[in-house]
Amino acid sequence: MNRSIVLARYPDGEIVEGDFALREGARPQVVEGTFVTRNRYFSMDAGFRQWMNADSGDNYLPGMPLDEAVQSIVLGEVIESRHPDFPEGAIVSARTAWEEYSLLDGSDLCSILEVDPRVPLHEYMSTLGPTGMTAWFGLQDIGRPQQGDVLLVSAAGGAVGTVVGQLGRIAGCHCIGLTSSEAKARWLRDEVGYHIAISRERYPDLPAALAEFAPQGIDIMFDNVGGTVLDAALGNLREGARIVLCGAIAQYEAEQPQPVYNTWELITKRANAQGFMFSDYAAQFPAAISELGRYLQQGSLKSFNQVYDGLEAAPRAFCDMMHGRSRGKCLVRLAAD
Amino acid sequence: MNRSIVLARYPDGEIVEGDFALREGARPQVVEGTFVTRNRYFSMDAGFRQWMNADSGDNYLPGMPLDEAVQSIVLGEVIESRHPDFPEGAIVSARTAWEEYSLLDGSDLCSILEVDPRVPLHEYMSTLGPTGMTAWFGLQDIGRPQQGDVLLVSAAGGAVGTVVGQLGRIAGCHCIGLTSSEAKARWLRDEVGYHIAISRERYPDLPAALAEFAPQGIDIMFDNVGGTVLDAALGNLREGARIVLCGAIAQYEAEQPQPVYNTWELITKRANAQGFMFSDYAAQFPAAISELGRYLQQGSLKSFNQVYDGLEAAPRAFCDMMHGRSRGKCLVRLAAD
Repeated sequence: MNRSIVLARYPDGEIVEGDFALREGARPQVVEGTFVTRNRYFSMDAGFRQWMNADSGDNYLPGMPLDEAVQSIVLGEVIESRHPDFPEGAIVSARTAWEEYSLLDGSDLCSILEVDPRVPLHEYMSTLGPTGMTAWFGLQDIGRPQQGDVLLVSAAGGAVGTVVGQLGRIAGCHCIGLTSSEAKARWLRDEVGYHIAISRERYPDLPAALAEFAPQGIDIMFDNVGGTVLDAALGNLREGARIVLCGAIAQYEAEQPQPVYNTWELITKRANAQGFMFSDYAAQFPAAISELGRYLQQGSLKSFNQVYDGLEAAPRAFCDMMHGRSRGKCLVRLAAD
Repeated sequence: MNRSIVLARYPDGEIVEGDFALREGARPQVVEGTFVTRNRYFSMDAGFRQWMNADSGDNYLPGMPLDEAVQSIVLGEVIESRHPDFPEGAIVSARTAWEEYSLLDGSDLCSILEVDPRVPLHEYMSTLGPTGMTAWFGLQDIGRPQQGDVLLVSAAGGAVGTVVGQLGRIAGCHCIGLTSSEAKARWLRDEVGYHIAISRERYPDLPAALAEFAPQGIDIMFDNVGGTVLDAALGNLREGARIVLCGAIAQYEAEQPQPVYNTWELITKRANAQGFMFSDYAAQFPAAISELGRYLQQGSLKSFNQVYDGLEAAPRAFCDMMHGRSRGKCLVRLAAD
């Protein structure tokens, strides 16, 4: 048997658990050039939400087909192989689907993980996985943090945001996080280590809040939200600012694209806005994993993970992650044998 | 006597000649650390329009004061000096004002021009001046053109646009220019050398026109316009595109900032948008002037200049330039003795 979670219908705006359904099928059969993984963790990533729409925008990935297992970054163990590069026992990360067993051929961001037995396995789907890579390369390569820089992070309590804030602090930045609720803002300050956390609940007028908390302007905006949040940041840049365009969660469930009015500010502030995907940096993953692993061991970096147990929990986990009900990295753990 | 053109009132939307007035005053007196120029050319630059508003946006330069000479990039000859670095006879470029004589202290983008006597003097306010520097550094440093790249230029018939299109062609790009009228589009193709020119007159639906003429997407967008034009380009990017944010003429006379909906495309296309000012590259001007001068001499680059004669012509020249009634670089030439 191979149980999976499929997209049962296209969401109408905010995605709900009922948009998904559990299916049972046959375990995949290995053929020459392929291998089968038993999956251990699913990574919940807002970026996949866009492709759950009937019209995904047609310009990055096509929309996910209905009644097929939901696409996702997955960690699994190779249990059967007829592929020379992926032997049995290897732990791999791949873009595959919410299913117990996957048939893979080594494409689609598939790579073998060099697992350190002292490190909990789920970290390779979190701080040492796509989330950590996104935070690391976005901040280091595009943000280029300098001592004393004001770093603004949107969706600061999310998977990437919790890592970026800590890395910014290590780099000597003044870290300001944006989040939905006061409870999360407190957590960002007390546990994650943001210097300042601004909640939508307490500060509905974001431009005014930024003028108050970043009066000298923003040097680095690490944006996971887009729309009005990006716009407010663009309205308060310091000269030479860097905008790390990582995600646009405000957009994935919106009926219309969100307008941004302050692109002109990029000119007057000689600012840079760069879009990226973590996978652009695949060749440099080992160095980043080693660096992030060292911070984790030293304790200068904490990993915030919210783990949901069991395949059946994936729809709830995904909806919680999308709608601000989870903190840090949201993961689904499949039952170990 | 020192005649000047002042801003008599703040424009109401589209600027008109009546917003300016002629004034007569006393010639400035040189004091220690200053020098006086007799001005020869005024450069008409859309970028200054923003500071002719009562509320300039308050985030780059404050609005120009009423009843003072209009700020502008000016070329003049030093006729009296008590400044060791600016001797009598030197030809200087500076950000000063629409006036016959200026009192300067060497600040405000002021520099001595190494004038080649074989080159017409006005070229130092055009292809070998701020216009050429803007085109050169925007395209080379931010656009980074590669053989075969699709280069889209907005306000292609303007000062910077005519230079960028030609430099793009030299670099082996497929050059597409955007302009207002069919007459200008023909001129862009026949005289300036754009491969394709798209006029708003013939193609009011710009996204559809871009889909037709750049079906593979745009590699470089050199934007002088902003707003809906920038938005249409963002909607049709190729992966790894570079957006050179040079100007936002659509915005300078608009009541409201213009919305841009497609910033999300910067993420999916891993694209870069960089704002800049030519003055950021001041240290590299001599090398660029030498390169552009060589192209001019070879004839591979043509300089398109529209010269208006006399101080009194400055308001008309500026309004023509703002509203698409001039072609190429718009200059005002003051009477030589």
